[in-house]
Amino acid sequence: MDIHALAQSVQLGERRALARAITLVESVRADHRAQAAELLELLSLGGRQALRIGLSGTPGVGKSTFIESFGMSLIAQGMRVAVLAVDPSSTRSGGSILGDKTRMDRLSRVPEAFIRPSPSQTHLGGVARRSREAVAVCEAAGFDVVLIETVGVGQSETMVAQMADLFVLLLAPAGGDELQGVKRGIMEMADLILINKADGDLKPAATRTMADYAGALRLLRKRAQDPEDFPKALAVSALEENGLQTAWDEMSTLIAWRREHCFFDRARAEQARFWFEEDVRQALLSRLTKVGPLRDTMSDLGDAVARGDVTSALAAKQMQDLLFR
Amino acid sequence: MDIHALAQSVQLGERRALARAITLVESVRADHRAQAAELLELLSLGGRQALRIGLSGTPGVGKSTFIESFGMSLIAQGMRVAVLAVDPSSTRSGGSILGDKTRMDRLSRVPEAFIRPSPSQTHLGGVARRSREAVAVCEAAGFDVVLIETVGVGQSETMVAQMADLFVLLLAPAGGDELQGVKRGIMEMADLILINKADGDLKPAATRTMADYAGALRLLRKRAQDPEDFPKALAVSALEENGLQTAWDEMSTLIAWRREHCFFDRARAEQARFWFEEDVRQALLSRLTKVGPLRDTMSDLGDAVARGDVTSALAAKQMQDLLFR
Repeated sequence: MDIHALAQSVQLGERRALARAITLVESVRADHRAQAAELLELLSLGGRQALRIGLSGTPGVGKSTFIESFGMSLIAQGMRVAVLAVDPSSTRSGGSILGDKTRMDRLSRVPEAFIRPSPSQTHLGGVARRSREAVAVCEAAGFDVVLIETVGVGQSETMVAQMADLFVLLLAPAGGDELQGVKRGIMEMADLILINKADGDLKPAATRTMADYAGALRLLRKRAQDPEDFPKALAVSALEENGLQTAWDEMSTLIAWRREHCFFDRARAEQARFWFEEDVRQALLSRLTKVGPLRDTMSDLGDAVARGDVTSALAAKQMQDLLFR
Repeated sequence: MDIHALAQSVQLGERRALARAITLVESVRADHRAQAAELLELLSLGGRQALRIGLSGTPGVGKSTFIESFGMSLIAQGMRVAVLAVDPSSTRSGGSILGDKTRMDRLSRVPEAFIRPSPSQTHLGGVARRSREAVAVCEAAGFDVVLIETVGVGQSETMVAQMADLFVLLLAPAGGDELQGVKRGIMEMADLILINKADGDLKPAATRTMADYAGALRLLRKRAQDPEDFPKALAVSALEENGLQTAWDEMSTLIAWRREHCFFDRARAEQARFWFEEDVRQALLSRLTKVGPLRDTMSDLGDAVARGDVTSALAAKQMQDLLFR
């Protein structure tokens, strides 16, 4: 594969090259990994930046409708929008909306949008890293906004937050069921909480829920990277396309402030460091499952430990002697 | 240090030997790690088993009062009880109740109980592994029940569940605040949910909350390792010492069923395998921060990535070449 030609085509915004480049960075084959590293290096020289927006929300909050309406509203303002999914679930159809492009009918048909479902999953760390590299490919292809969506299950949000400039949490109006409550840790990651479905019968509930979350956000400890009044909670209707412009204006305000106060670049620098370290850690750990003799010894010692023939501490020591001799 | 003598003293139930043995397994020094592995091997030959109960609950649910009342009730039945903490928080005083033994005044003074605060923390993985080894030491010392408590912050529960035979979630009566809601993932781990403070004014709320959680538990997918009617939700009052015997009876029923159906031993075998693998993974990863030249290169490459001089993918590849040449 001619990596230089591929990089050039991606930078010219050719859709087929874009799709091929993402397939390359998603591949786990060793030769592909080396080519992917070269491609990413070439693409980074272009220096293009998109606004990376992380978006989380559990199934049922109307995420696909929101992405479609929000994406179309950005395109109407002259922007190009890429949508990527980070889906840690074992079946593609379970949580991710993106397996089913037909649910984003309008967005999937305009040339200013690019929609990419989650890579076929291995472990979350791997999916996340490859998604992060797909984000870099989309940036190089000249998209203005990259939406990175995930389902609300905890660790995937942390990963998405590590590749986004801002993190949006999409919620449905509260049904009064305590167990539907958003996890505190995810709320603490949010820069903007959007209560969707502020339309029809649900409008009063959406307004109430928005006020509840606005109150809860005020109780959280102030973060250095936030201007006055952030994080915020807003009510929107993706269905009626209400509040989307306000949401975008708030995002723009936040990002302008962060750029001005150096938090934008600093966050990206620390994210890059995080992914480098994570890459090295994953490569190191993968030796335990990929290098034949190591994998076999791990398995044998694991069996012995499970049978009670040896303690896990002693077996671990034996394994370390083998690894580090 | 004479490890054989120490093992013998632990098995005789000598408190000072027990404390010294736990200090040894908690140590991160390489020579101590080797001695700890030897000690654990010797202790495992005794074949003693305690019932290991994982206990989670956020601050404010009355965990210290519960541990004291529940522990004393077990001791009144002739049992010996050890209490260990797994506290992932950065400051000891933050979440763990065990930094303050005075809050378990009665339990800390009876010879049938042993209370050990969380080891001074490094990363959670390290704390958890050492806690797991402390559990093994307490088992060898002849305790009948080992209570492993943690604060409700997510990942620590997963670790505690990996070292416990059953997992108890302690909750306070609901105050109607959706954000106080227990994380779904933690609820799915629970074998028994106890709503504490079922006394005085809070009694009706506790009963209601118990019914709510009982309903929610019925909606969860059935697990193979559960008999009919489990997991369960019960209301208790640690303050008035009500419901503690019922809670213990339910635990005993569950464990008897699991023993009879081989789930008890199978879970322990898989836990042992998990900790072996986790030990090896941690040892491998710790080389990146402990071996001087590796650490320095990681740091230099991380700086270069943060400055944008090189992509994280390429830097990771360079680091791997260095590690695996």
